[in-house]
Amino acid sequence: MNLLLRNVRLGGGDPTDVLVRDGRIAGFGPADADGPVEDGGGALLLPGLVDAHCHLDKTLWGLPWVPNTSGSTLADRISNEQRRRKEFGLPSPEPAAALLDAMIANGTSFVRAHTDVDPELGLSGIEAVREAAARHRGRVTVEQVAFPQGGLLTRPGTLELLERAVASGVENVGGIDPAGYDRDPRGHLDAIFDIAARHGCGVDLHLHDEGPLGAWEIELVIERTKALGLAGKVAIGHAFGICGIPDAQQDRLLEGLAEQRITLTTAAVYDRPVPPLAKMRAAGANAACGNDGIRDLWGPYGDGDMLTRTMHLAYRSSFRTDPEIELALHAATYGGAKALRLKDYGLKIGDHADFFLVAARYPAEAVVSHPPRRLVVKGGAIVSRR
Amino acid sequence: MNLLLRNVRLGGGDPTDVLVRDGRIAGFGPADADGPVEDGGGALLLPGLVDAHCHLDKTLWGLPWVPNTSGSTLADRISNEQRRRKEFGLPSPEPAAALLDAMIANGTSFVRAHTDVDPELGLSGIEAVREAAARHRGRVTVEQVAFPQGGLLTRPGTLELLERAVASGVENVGGIDPAGYDRDPRGHLDAIFDIAARHGCGVDLHLHDEGPLGAWEIELVIERTKALGLAGKVAIGHAFGICGIPDAQQDRLLEGLAEQRITLTTAAVYDRPVPPLAKMRAAGANAACGNDGIRDLWGPYGDGDMLTRTMHLAYRSSFRTDPEIELALHAATYGGAKALRLKDYGLKIGDHADFFLVAARYPAEAVVSHPPRRLVVKGGAIVSRR
Repeated sequence: MNLLLRNVRLGGGDPTDVLVRDGRIAGFGPADADGPVEDGGGALLLPGLVDAHCHLDKTLWGLPWVPNTSGSTLADRISNEQRRRKEFGLPSPEPAAALLDAMIANGTSFVRAHTDVDPELGLSGIEAVREAAARHRGRVTVEQVAFPQGGLLTRPGTLELLERAVASGVENVGGIDPAGYDRDPRGHLDAIFDIAARHGCGVDLHLHDEGPLGAWEIELVIERTKALGLAGKVAIGHAFGICGIPDAQQDRLLEGLAEQRITLTTAAVYDRPVPPLAKMRAAGANAACGNDGIRDLWGPYGDGDMLTRTMHLAYRSSFRTDPEIELALHAATYGGAKALRLKDYGLKIGDHADFFLVAARYPAEAVVSHPPRRLVVKGGAIVSRR
Repeated sequence: MNLLLRNVRLGGGDPTDVLVRDGRIAGFGPADADGPVEDGGGALLLPGLVDAHCHLDKTLWGLPWVPNTSGSTLADRISNEQRRRKEFGLPSPEPAAALLDAMIANGTSFVRAHTDVDPELGLSGIEAVREAAARHRGRVTVEQVAFPQGGLLTRPGTLELLERAVASGVENVGGIDPAGYDRDPRGHLDAIFDIAARHGCGVDLHLHDEGPLGAWEIELVIERTKALGLAGKVAIGHAFGICGIPDAQQDRLLEGLAEQRITLTTAAVYDRPVPPLAKMRAAGANAACGNDGIRDLWGPYGDGDMLTRTMHLAYRSSFRTDPEIELALHAATYGGAKALRLKDYGLKIGDHADFFLVAARYPAEAVVSHPPRRLVVKGGAIVSRR
């Protein structure tokens, strides 16, 4: 895949040209075309967005408005979804594929989807997301987490299904509130980490438990990551427990996360705590960002646009300066790429040509204004244009 | 101003027609046109949005991106703005008028603008906003608050300027953190309420002080409103102090606010506390919504769209069901109208024909999706179309 992209800006600099050869960035500056040529109109070039935490199998994207009935507790929301998903024919490839199309149009190149696995569903959600991803092959890279949304130890049969999912090629094993929801933090985490250790897959846990309880569970995750040599292969989604604890304890946790290269993935949802991105950066701990649920039975919000989500993250973090806002964008790009263990991700010579153009002069401006994406390129090929 | 609007929906119902005569809603259902006819395409009709708290005089709208340098405290932000506003020729009618144009295009019919008044500026900000509003006469109704951003008692000469502003026709007198910033809550509030009592104008205070301090200042405002017979003429912006206090105290405050018909106006900014809209509704206390600062020296966020702002308010309130999300929309419409003491506001026969059309089936959907506004009508005239 060859491409010459003329007149684009990198990080607020003067316009330049980008040469793509065989799907990779081959150079910057004046070059002769040996393939298609595009004029970037002076727009900003940013690396493909990474949605490191979403739920493609749950979305009602493309359907008429569904008034929300989710209830007020985590347990209410889980049972509401289990009751109503059949009404909408979920899981199904159609809404997931429609949402992926919106994500691609908004510049997302990589997606990690948490997909419900339970005895009622079996692996049908996993299959539906695989089919949706197959429909967009070459336009976006999708990986999955086999996610025990309805409980792991409290829902007999689920653990075996997670293992089957991983054996069938699912890239990561998931978990949910080992204490608050599943009631046996040690048993829950040992079971998940055992699958990861035996199969060599990644671990990506949902952790909504807050304050001291959530913080203690983060400690348990760090301990197991270290004991099993899984450094760099573990992520914790939401991770509200990193907030609302004493500074000294937070510092210790960040140090442990950095040492074990564990990612905290946030979507800056509702009024829930947002991980301290600036402190994480200072501590060397990785942060990623995802859309979480998009227009589903859990909540009606979301549009699949990771720049809009990044704006929410920056806004909720009270970031005002450009370098601060760029911290949030880092989570939605390089931080996500690290969580997904992507190779050759970025805008250097030799990196995969996964990027997009947006009408802004500066990265922070792109986050705040998040205008439509002019051009989206994946592997050197144009996959969306507006 | 006559208009026949065919094929529009009200609150999720079946399509109907709306007849406008002499700038007011004259009827619903089949009617003969005696003026222009518009096809609404089945879009949702909502009453004109009310931005009950914004800062037209500060905006950099329409200028190239300005990296933020505001600092981390309220005092830092005030001094940063005072230092840099000249650099951008502020206050000036141009950016304010450009922003008003964006607000109108997004369905805003009424705006209450807090305008800085201090000895350096005199009333030049007030004049700039008046000029900006005059350029959009008939498209939007703008009223002002003479706002002592730089301090009232701590900035000698400001109090006299506020009085001059009100005497010149400014509709409201403002204040800022009587305790936290101006250091003399009793003196500050007495001075402001004295102006209001003598001139018959409204009062609209900025109150960022949090927890028990802010709550105590809210009490002081309730006491003065009652003592001076200003019920229905007072608003408190931000009012973070209504949160982070014991429930019983919050209940007492809400009761006092309801009794004195004092509005709390929120913009759901950054990570700051959001007033409890559902509890306020139950207590009969009025809530309004505004954009606050839009692309200015305080922060780079905002686009002037009150539906987007309403989404932020609903999202930060963790509202998921349609009736909950409609609470946020109520603040951005009827709640704002009450704060601004508008007469004949709404979608009943006889009300002023101030409304807009948006491609959604339900009000909650309009808030969550906030698509472009198809048609905006003010006083029966079409003032924007997309």
